[in-house]
Amino acid sequence: MRLSTLRHACRNLPTPSVHQPRTGVRVFGLAKRSLPLGHSNNSQLLLRAACSISGTTSAEKAPKLGKQTDGPGYENTIRENVQRTKEKMVALQRGHPALKPTLAIIQADEDDRLLEINKKMAGKIGLNITQICLPRECTEDEIIEEVLKLNEDPRVHGVYLHLPPASLTSRVLNTLRPEKDVDGVSDLNVGRLVRGDMSQGFTPPLANAVMELLARHDTPMEGRTVLVVGGEGPLGVALQCLMQRGGMVVLNSRRSSEGLQKQMMQANAVVLLAAGHMDVPPTWLRPGTAVIHCGSALMTDHGREMSGVGPLTAALRMRNVVQSSSRWAQGQQYRPWTLRSLKLQPLSPVPSDIEISRAQTPKPVDQLAQEIGLLQEETEAYGRTKAKVRLSLLDRLREQPDGKYVLVAGITPTPLGEGKSTVVIGLVQALSAHLKLNSFACLRQPSQGPTFGVKGGAAGGGYAQVIPMEEFNLHLTGDIHAITAANNLVAAAIDARMLHEATQTDKALYSRLVPSVNGVRRFSPIQIARLCRLGISEIDPRALTPQEVSSFVRLDLDPAKVTWQRVVDTNDRFLRKITVGQASTEKGHVRETQFDIAVASEIMAILALADGLGDMKTRLGRMVVGSSRSGQPITAEDLGVSGALAVLMKDAIKPTLMQTLEGSPVFVHAGPFANIAHGNSSVLADKLALKLVGEDGFVVTEAGFGADIGMEKFFNIKCRASGLRPNVVVLVATVRALKMHGGGPNVSAGSPLPREYIDEVRDWRERTLLGLKQSSTTILLSVVMTDTQAEIDLVCQMAKESGAADAVPCHHWARGGRGSVDLAQAVKQASSQPSHFQFLYSQETPIVEKIRMIAQKVYGADDIELSPEAQAKIDYYNQQGYGKLPICMAKTHLSLSHLPEKKGTPTGFTLPIRDIRASIGAGFIYPLVGTMSTMPGLPTRPCFYDIDLDPVTEEITGLF
Amino acid sequence: MRLSTLRHACRNLPTPSVHQPRTGVRVFGLAKRSLPLGHSNNSQLLLRAACSISGTTSAEKAPKLGKQTDGPGYENTIRENVQRTKEKMVALQRGHPALKPTLAIIQADEDDRLLEINKKMAGKIGLNITQICLPRECTEDEIIEEVLKLNEDPRVHGVYLHLPPASLTSRVLNTLRPEKDVDGVSDLNVGRLVRGDMSQGFTPPLANAVMELLARHDTPMEGRTVLVVGGEGPLGVALQCLMQRGGMVVLNSRRSSEGLQKQMMQANAVVLLAAGHMDVPPTWLRPGTAVIHCGSALMTDHGREMSGVGPLTAALRMRNVVQSSSRWAQGQQYRPWTLRSLKLQPLSPVPSDIEISRAQTPKPVDQLAQEIGLLQEETEAYGRTKAKVRLSLLDRLREQPDGKYVLVAGITPTPLGEGKSTVVIGLVQALSAHLKLNSFACLRQPSQGPTFGVKGGAAGGGYAQVIPMEEFNLHLTGDIHAITAANNLVAAAIDARMLHEATQTDKALYSRLVPSVNGVRRFSPIQIARLCRLGISEIDPRALTPQEVSSFVRLDLDPAKVTWQRVVDTNDRFLRKITVGQASTEKGHVRETQFDIAVASEIMAILALADGLGDMKTRLGRMVVGSSRSGQPITAEDLGVSGALAVLMKDAIKPTLMQTLEGSPVFVHAGPFANIAHGNSSVLADKLALKLVGEDGFVVTEAGFGADIGMEKFFNIKCRASGLRPNVVVLVATVRALKMHGGGPNVSAGSPLPREYIDEVRDWRERTLLGLKQSSTTILLSVVMTDTQAEIDLVCQMAKESGAADAVPCHHWARGGRGSVDLAQAVKQASSQPSHFQFLYSQETPIVEKIRMIAQKVYGADDIELSPEAQAKIDYYNQQGYGKLPICMAKTHLSLSHLPEKKGTPTGFTLPIRDIRASIGAGFIYPLVGTMSTMPGLPTRPCFYDIDLDPVTEEITGLF
Repeated sequence: MRLSTLRHACRNLPTPSVHQPRTGVRVFGLAKRSLPLGHSNNSQLLLRAACSISGTTSAEKAPKLGKQTDGPGYENTIRENVQRTKEKMVALQRGHPALKPTLAIIQADEDDRLLEINKKMAGKIGLNITQICLPRECTEDEIIEEVLKLNEDPRVHGVYLHLPPASLTSRVLNTLRPEKDVDGVSDLNVGRLVRGDMSQGFTPPLANAVMELLARHDTPMEGRTVLVVGGEGPLGVALQCLMQRGGMVVLNSRRSSEGLQKQMMQANAVVLLAAGHMDVPPTWLRPGTAVIHCGSALMTDHGREMSGVGPLTAALRMRNVVQSSSRWAQGQQYRPWTLRSLKLQPLSPVPSDIEISRAQTPKPVDQLAQEIGLLQEETEAYGRTKAKVRLSLLDRLREQPDGKYVLVAGITPTPLGEGKSTVVIGLVQALSAHLKLNSFACLRQPSQGPTFGVKGGAAGGGYAQVIPMEEFNLHLTGDIHAITAANNLVAAAIDARMLHEATQTDKALYSRLVPSVNGVRRFSPIQIARLCRLGISEIDPRALTPQEVSSFVRLDLDPAKVTWQRVVDTNDRFLRKITVGQASTEKGHVRETQFDIAVASEIMAILALADGLGDMKTRLGRMVVGSSRSGQPITAEDLGVSGALAVLMKDAIKPTLMQTLEGSPVFVHAGPFANIAHGNSSVLADKLALKLVGEDGFVVTEAGFGADIGMEKFFNIKCRASGLRPNVVVLVATVRALKMHGGGPNVSAGSPLPREYIDEVRDWRERTLLGLKQSSTTILLSVVMTDTQAEIDLVCQMAKESGAADAVPCHHWARGGRGSVDLAQAVKQASSQPSHFQFLYSQETPIVEKIRMIAQKVYGADDIELSPEAQAKIDYYNQQGYGKLPICMAKTHLSLSHLPEKKGTPTGFTLPIRDIRASIGAGFIYPLVGTMSTMPGLPTRPCFYDIDLDPVTEEITGLF
Repeated sequence: MRLSTLRHACRNLPTPSVHQPRTGVRVFGLAKRSLPLGHSNNSQLLLRAACSISGTTSAEKAPKLGKQTDGPGYENTIRENVQRTKEKMVALQRGHPALKPTLAIIQADEDDRLLEINKKMAGKIGLNITQICLPRECTEDEIIEEVLKLNEDPRVHGVYLHLPPASLTSRVLNTLRPEKDVDGVSDLNVGRLVRGDMSQGFTPPLANAVMELLARHDTPMEGRTVLVVGGEGPLGVALQCLMQRGGMVVLNSRRSSEGLQKQMMQANAVVLLAAGHMDVPPTWLRPGTAVIHCGSALMTDHGREMSGVGPLTAALRMRNVVQSSSRWAQGQQYRPWTLRSLKLQPLSPVPSDIEISRAQTPKPVDQLAQEIGLLQEETEAYGRTKAKVRLSLLDRLREQPDGKYVLVAGITPTPLGEGKSTVVIGLVQALSAHLKLNSFACLRQPSQGPTFGVKGGAAGGGYAQVIPMEEFNLHLTGDIHAITAANNLVAAAIDARMLHEATQTDKALYSRLVPSVNGVRRFSPIQIARLCRLGISEIDPRALTPQEVSSFVRLDLDPAKVTWQRVVDTNDRFLRKITVGQASTEKGHVRETQFDIAVASEIMAILALADGLGDMKTRLGRMVVGSSRSGQPITAEDLGVSGALAVLMKDAIKPTLMQTLEGSPVFVHAGPFANIAHGNSSVLADKLALKLVGEDGFVVTEAGFGADIGMEKFFNIKCRASGLRPNVVVLVATVRALKMHGGGPNVSAGSPLPREYIDEVRDWRERTLLGLKQSSTTILLSVVMTDTQAEIDLVCQMAKESGAADAVPCHHWARGGRGSVDLAQAVKQASSQPSHFQFLYSQETPIVEKIRMIAQKVYGADDIELSPEAQAKIDYYNQQGYGKLPICMAKTHLSLSHLPEKKGTPTGFTLPIRDIRASIGAGFIYPLVGTMSTMPGLPTRPCFYDIDLDPVTEEITGLF
């Protein structure tokens, strides 16, 4: 409250009667050089600026002291400060041409002369001013509302509260964001100044002004005594801190203090901070004592206006604004990480995943975000451990070079999965917590179906997990739910539209689709888009010909050629084939259809491939849902639903930030089915992460299933869409998978593992290491999980012989990042080698050729064999102009061939292409090799039997 | 950084050589009374505590000054402080018996003597101590990790960082939460002390200790001069602030300062803050000068241990801990609101809902939460405008009296809806922003189906809205998605189980349901619950008889008697009747079934009625999904899925906090279908809100549909479940609805309104005001929207004649809260009258009688007529013990009768009960009066045609 009094004092005009010096002993301007200490008796240097500036004070007005006409004086002090600030401003704007440093002034004062000085000063320096005028009797709430708006406004770099003292309450001062508090009046900024850490915060301009004036004293003030009168408030305290840091001896006195005269006699300089004017009798001062009067920023003398410390203070306020702008610009740049690792003390035997996850306390997600250089406005917290990250980051760090891009893929797996996600997490834990390198894991969001079905969660496992694993495995931030909602809105629109078209005349349809609202009929933008596609340029609904009306209102979808399916995120096998429309209200329009698991939705594939909101919206609109009776493709936009889809997906497009058990950052985003789609996490998450880690950092992302599927699609679909190229590929091989592909018996989820996989086996045939020979364009590292040393050594040796850059065993499951340090070192080493990435095929290659190239070069097939349906589809897609899309093979992941039971590296087979489909929105053609299930089922004893929640502790058990 | 040096100094033991006074001129203990200023020459009072405490320092040790044996001395100072703190502690614990004030010490020092003093002091006062020992060479990150844990630990009220100075970095000090920073060392707390606002923050104990000692000086120090030596750091600054506030004149000097001797001569007291020991030659001091040495907290004298200012500092640290605990306890109490209203400047004509919503900047939700007295740990933000509120609040405010409970219901509506939600919001805006009364709106979360279908959003309208309205209308915080996921997991479990039972022997089922894991077979807790219900007490899986195994493994669900339906949150009419299981993998087990809209799920009704996590879990487990072939009800728990359901719903149970256009708080929670369920928002949201508004506040909640449905169910189902009783009922009547019930033509959504509803009509029959006569147990207020003044006057007059406490027109749609001030006044007035609430029927009443009472007393029917199916169901439910459940009528909302076309107050009809169903988990029986659609459809031109998203601005258009 005291500061406000002072601020008030230095802002308000004193009443004319206030400044009526009786003695006339005043020197305007700073006595420097020409008036050395001790030069004249009883001199006082009343540092008032106005007269220096205005130059109107004649020597006659202060005859006893003489006018300092030859010294640089106060005006020069201001000029020099303005000049320096201007130079900083120019340098700042050179580096950031778009930046417009801006001071916002909240004003509720009738008098605006001081305001004018500040505005003039801002003008000199080139700062923008935004002025908010409130009525003088405005309430605290009204001020707070304005302050809050300015807090959130990225265009404002500093706020000057030009308000009546009563309005400058603690609440107002502390509502203002400290980084915009250029007057340094908030508790936090006062504390920063006192504690002496000025990397943030601001020195109050008035305190700075006094220090500037003292610095211009002709004798260095270090070791000298300065008397501060009326310095009880925070401004006084700040000033004293600065003085003490400047080596001055500070005396303190109240204005009314009895010993004031005695103290003045001791002082080499006197600073009058007390409000209002105060005249000091010359006899109280030693010769040469400097007197700085801060009591009023402006004063009148015989009716003439003069400025006090106001102009210099204003200049220094502007310096703070430029400093704030500069910090803001700095904050917009790439920021080195200050990542804090979480300690991990692995237990043996390794507890359950949920127990390990629960035992670790994750960092608050806003803190993690700050550690990795995200701005506050770039994150949206979802509870305490998850946050959406806004895409504006990409724009902010446009110029920032990407980090290293590491793909984790696997050899052809067993049905149990080989722990690729766990490798990704362990590797990132090792890179960040142990090698202290910036690194980011990018993972897919798992479907809830398997979580409650047979597979369990997908947050990694053991001591390499994303935490809290239950958040990861449950609703997360609702992206899959959003996809379900969007997908099913399209489905409902399709069936409803077919019904309405079947039961209404053209005219009735038209009058409903383009209704008269308040007597006006108008096409909506989404309808105009359809008119364009139909080649109708008329946009007056009354002017369409009946023919045009008919083609506009009738999509004429062929029920037998609807390719769009409904989805649920549940393993519900009974929805694999269903008949809908059997209620009487649907008038017999029954139709056979199916539900897929939600992650198989084309919208999920779009989410994973889109590179921004606009791109996603375009892709959603061009999704083909079926074809008309005349064979034309019908899109989501034809249904009028594309805008609604974008609205439903507007939050899902932002990746979700979480963390590993050791506190490294993780993006969880998208999880397209690896069967009929490309099975990779999102392009956007990878792009954001590559910017965040910085040039020397690492982003580790994962491709689903084996190298033949996930990795091939990563290269030819995801990298093609994103323009990104991997620097290193890590190929995960487990002894278990190698044994199986080397001739071991089958394994299946939920059944005990055959003995062969537990005992040591030495006679694997070499061909089991097939995966290691693929994709020779990139460096390969094979990773081996626990097993006997002999087995591990054998695999490592074979991997190296097959051309891998390195092969190291990993123990992240049991030991966390520490168990993956060898892998991290190997990845780091490999990333420094040049990589020679090239696509397997060009987009221009005909569809059949593209399929053949994948079959022969990746799967080792002799050739492909197209069914008549497949051939017909290829012709149709070519005719529709879809021939240049990349290929997304829908093939079993359990064998390189189309036959799951063919293990190892099968040869001498022909790959049958049963049918071909297209995801036009996602942007790929997917040939079906055999029958693909898009809906898993529940086993007799699903995972959910063990899952429970303690209603008191809220602890979850049974998730794994 | 300086503070840390000082803290270090006052903690570490000086080396033995440090304190070797050459002069021996030391007095231990404070010279008071007996040694007045000026009493003896060259006296100094070296305020070191140890000797006083130990009582071992003889007068011989300070012969020149004399020992102050008769004064209260240092030991007394400590004793008195301890005593006062102890008294505060006792008072605190009397008020909060469960509170255990606790100081946490993070320690990384080898020496622990000072620690022992602190622990001893804590023990004297009765504080708990938690000690965290880190290795001396611990990293900053390790310290931060511990600090963060303590920050989050509600059992810790203060933290003492007993660390090497190098470890006390800015980052460490500022990571500690200011409210636990009992040493007052963080930037914020230093700033608070300097600015003088000590309602938060803490005075550093050492500064307090010095002030205590000065206060004990025999002459009041006010106006006297105190020299502080070495006070450059924040501790020195803090001390000087305190001294200046105490009216002392403060001199400041460095230890090495040349003028030190001279300054000492001037001082009435000298405080030595510099690190290490410093002896002051007696000749430097004036007679009677007090000298306080803070250089070391502990000192040795000739090998004996003595404490310095340490013990008093420790005592005052404990005082801060007690103060912190007291603040914490205070913070746990009900806190008066500091609600900041948002200004509203309504435009005319009123813009679209989305435009109005977008034009207003909502308060950050964490700020709103703080304004209404929520603790930080009680909210979980979902982005910037929504937050989940934790149920622990109910426990915290257990003793707090509830506010007034206001129900908004409506007269029998038109199909367009009569704006009840809008009234709720307008009323709350008026109560809080205009009458400045605490008030809370509790609303239902809308289904996405209607949002994209025909009805549009449900966030209110015009200038009475919940903002941001698009967040309200879209995924919100995912509760409905969670319900969908949970509901469909049950459905998938049902069909999968029937298939598995049909295709496996008892033995195979048993070995899968109770598998051998590592050679051990064990029932899961959820299976043991089923065994209990079956009356099997054996829990060794090997010991069950074949008969018992069979009854355990076979639910034997009758496919024809499965009552559980799948749900989607989409208006998908083609799912009203479907056939599932048609894929070959399901082996011919096809079944006819249906999808409902998600809000019709019994899980939604449970969410709305549950009063906690435990209650919800119990209700989820006892949901009946169908019956066995032998007629036994089969529950979700029998399916083994109840734990998973609770896990899926763990976040949904927390109400979502949002705000109105004028910044008043809103809970959005649950939205059960008003047709087959009870159509009211959640019990939990109402309960939380009633605690938050406080005794004189208002909670306004809404009942769906007309008074005959929503209000009747509110009274007899929701109030019965919650134990809450409404104080006021507001009945919404629109001129439009009154006209229709008075004989006007039909209206329907999407069609233009007939002229009769726009023009003034004067000949309504009086019976149209039927709604106003219902439920005479409560005070009624009727609300009239815009219309002609004559119409409004007529309605108001008729309403009052019908017994309403008041009847006022409202203009919130066009004018916001200001337009509802009359209503708010009327509600306030009515709430001060006693209300006489009673249930329409007792739970003990037989089912048929309960139905008859509702039909006759609420609908005005002559009698009811039960179909044979309905009669059979009643018998079945009675036999199963469900006879005492309340009744939830499933009836059209468009007429008081079962016939939608019968407007007004029909009489002379018999209500047919077609069938009866039960929601056992939710806890009600629902008779079907006619056919209820549980799945809306999409019209020819659904809302989504106008909904769009601008990919650049991210602005949504077309939502209404």
